[in-house]
Amino acid sequence: MECSVARTLDAIGDRWSLLILRDAFYGVRRFDDFARDLGVARNILADRLGKLLSKGILEKRQYEERPPRFEYHLTARGKDLIGVVMAMMRWGDRWTSPEDPPVKITHTPCGHVTTPVVACSECGEELRLRDLLADPLPIQGVDPARVLGAAVGN
Amino acid sequence: MECSVARTLDAIGDRWSLLILRDAFYGVRRFDDFARDLGVARNILADRLGKLLSKGILEKRQYEERPPRFEYHLTARGKDLIGVVMAMMRWGDRWTSPEDPPVKITHTPCGHVTTPVVACSECGEELRLRDLLADPLPIQGVDPARVLGAAVGN
Repeated sequence: MECSVARTLDAIGDRWSLLILRDAFYGVRRFDDFARDLGVARNILADRLGKLLSKGILEKRQYEERPPRFEYHLTARGKDLIGVVMAMMRWGDRWTSPEDPPVKITHTPCGHVTTPVVACSECGEELRLRDLLADPLPIQGVDPARVLGAAVGN
Repeated sequence: MECSVARTLDAIGDRWSLLILRDAFYGVRRFDDFARDLGVARNILADRLGKLLSKGILEKRQYEERPPRFEYHLTARGKDLIGVVMAMMRWGDRWTSPEDPPVKITHTPCGHVTTPVVACSECGEELRLRDLLADPLPIQGVDPARVLGAAVGN
């Protein structure tokens, strides 16, 4: 598919892949540590790690020679997925956490506990559905088209 | 799981669910339109629409009485997932689109074509992995812990 959302899903669009990624952001690097933290079957874990390697999101680094052992490290491309994971965390905090957010994230340059905001690169305001206009509209046969917000009646 | 990322994945963490959601943001509302645009089998589509209904992301609205016909509309909770989808679009644009972004998004309040940025709610700067600190760290047995950026050596 031509759409960048679909392309991102091709790279990471699987529940286990995203949880592996989340663990990688928290510093997990070794097969046994992923397996233990996620409680995932080893064959599934091996498959998903292989996919993340093939997509250039993780890379293997040898940390022991005899026997040869490897760690899985995030690439630049993988590290840049932090925005996707932060946007997911924010939505989960807002809509699924009845109490306080289970994990607090501090933004060290400004020193404050942060709430990730998906914002406009030009004016800095939070992007809301009703304020967005897509061009070209990648869906056929939908009317009135073009205005994302208007299209969903908001 | 306690983590908000995992909770968000519970709600939407499936390739088809996310593509249905993307289409809903573009104004698709009817079963046949989802089926045609996505090329997904009807039983899978029915299953995923049912899950999105049960999670409160979509709601059914009757638009015809005889025969009774329904549309699928985004709820407030569903509309708020635009941030997750925008973060995915941005990553796909940056890392998987060799040419220009296939879809341009205009932010109507400021009038500019926007690049979605996942930013700090407090200072407005883009959130980068090396600048983030998590507390408490929701992963066991990882050292040095707490600093997301330091934990992945960045």
